[in-house]
Amino acid sequence: MKDLTNDNLTETVIDAFSGCAEPRTKEIITALVRHLHDFAREVRLTHDEWRHGIEFLTATGKKCDGIRQEFILLSDTLGFSIVLDAINQRHEEQSTESSLLGPFYRDGVKEAEFGADIAQTEGDPAVFRGRVVDVDGRPVAGALIEVWQTAANGMYEGQDPDQPEGNLRGRFHSNAAGEYAFRSLKPTSYPIPTDGPVGRMLVATGRHPMRPAHVHFRIAAPGYETLTTALFSSDDPYVDSDAVFGVKSSLVVDYVPKESHFDVERDFVLIAANRS
Amino acid sequence: MKDLTNDNLTETVIDAFSGCAEPRTKEIITALVRHLHDFAREVRLTHDEWRHGIEFLTATGKKCDGIRQEFILLSDTLGFSIVLDAINQRHEEQSTESSLLGPFYRDGVKEAEFGADIAQTEGDPAVFRGRVVDVDGRPVAGALIEVWQTAANGMYEGQDPDQPEGNLRGRFHSNAAGEYAFRSLKPTSYPIPTDGPVGRMLVATGRHPMRPAHVHFRIAAPGYETLTTALFSSDDPYVDSDAVFGVKSSLVVDYVPKESHFDVERDFVLIAANRS
Ligand SMILES: [Fe+2]
Ligand SMILES: [Fe+2]
Repeated sequence: MKDLTNDNLTETVIDAFSGCAEPRTKEIITALVRHLHDFAREVRLTHDEWRHGIEFLTATGKKCDGIRQEFILLSDTLGFSIVLDAINQRHEEQSTESSLLGPFYRDGVKEAEFGADIAQTEGDPAVFRGRVVDVDGRPVAGALIEVWQTAANGMYEGQDPDQPEGNLRGRFHSNAAGEYAFRSLKPTSYPIPTDGPVGRMLVATGRHPMRPAHVHFRIAAPGYETLTTALFSSDDPYVDSDAVFGVKSSLVVDYVPKESHFDVERDFVLIAANRS
Repeated sequence: MKDLTNDNLTETVIDAFSGCAEPRTKEIITALVRHLHDFAREVRLTHDEWRHGIEFLTATGKKCDGIRQEFILLSDTLGFSIVLDAINQRHEEQSTESSLLGPFYRDGVKEAEFGADIAQTEGDPAVFRGRVVDVDGRPVAGALIEVWQTAANGMYEGQDPDQPEGNLRGRFHSNAAGEYAFRSLKPTSYPIPTDGPVGRMLVATGRHPMRPAHVHFRIAAPGYETLTTALFSSDDPYVDSDAVFGVKSSLVVDYVPKESHFDVERDFVLIAANRS
């Protein structure tokens, strides 16, 4: 038999997965085992601490239902989700950085005209405009641009029974010059749900649950990588401490006050799908 | 504001925990974040793969109830529990290696005499004897020795309504020479519960759910570190592939056949509590 000791536990566990028929599953679980064991050894985790960990994971599972997904919230608040975004979103020096899709995207929104107003509720009017271009600055015509954001009360249409169908959700195509424009509201910061284990984790670790105000963008065009991102308001008190780490400095925009509204100008730079 | 980019996500997340008032919590969560992020980057985890991960964790939480603890089962089958045992059980060159306590320990068992028979059900009789000693071979008198094991059907008393109260559970004290002896049965291998997400994980990764036959020992004496360990049967087909990685080569024993029973001889070496 193998010489099994306390010193070769990790190799013994990894060996146990040697018969795994699916190579990708084997690769993932092997790496997971190695990192989990290293984590335990690094902090010399005690049985008591792990009992708390088991209780936390169990409560997190129990909190999940058809609507609420507490493990995604955990993934988001530990920055795991944004790391996945960074891994899976290709990036070149000129291209626009990515951000989280989040749970509030939905498709099937009605197409609107260039310059249309997507707000059906009250708030501070804002006009968004800019161009969709490639990394060499050439316009991308006919790009599908989807946007969604919170109303003045910090809630998305779909979360809030008082908002009319499709409120603050837009679907546009860029024109021949790659341009887009729409009218909406200045968005509002909002807390992630705090009435579960993740909320208790935030309290226990001295963190707040707020996301700084932002407008989500999803931009797709034939021949280009789809870009999932968001624009964050530079004057938001939480812009430097997003509870789910979606902010990049390059995605922070100024809302420039005009007579009757704010102006936001922003181009989006897509990567060609066949570039490496 | 900070310069937030895709390249400093992990540092940004760790910064977010800088206000955590409890230093140990901060140490643990910081190490956890770093290892989770490294894991994701190392395997370039996709959104789809993580969706499966989220579903798995959620189902694992849902499977837990007052009796069943599927996250402990996950911890056991990924070798996390045995690593914790190794971390938290002190070890010196001469001392007996540790193994998992497992879910079937219970206290309140009635004290038995030197040499008593603890089996109330049928099986292959076995006699266990040996000494409790310190690392210099000196006898430890009056050590509390607790043992528990499966019956011939692979189940523990407490799991199985057909077994009499206290069946195959023993509680003894070593004599003045440090000796212990009791009569019992040759234990039986058994599967961990497979009707949940962890069972599906084992199938998906080509692993079996069996634990090789073993007798659990917990040995405590004033002035010594408490030892939690087990003795595994050398002739068991699963001795080289324990589903929860409890086996050490040094804990494998022979059941030596005699006329009417098997003999198992085994000493246990305790570490003084004040040695480092
Ligand atoms: Fe959002
Ligand atoms: Fe056991």
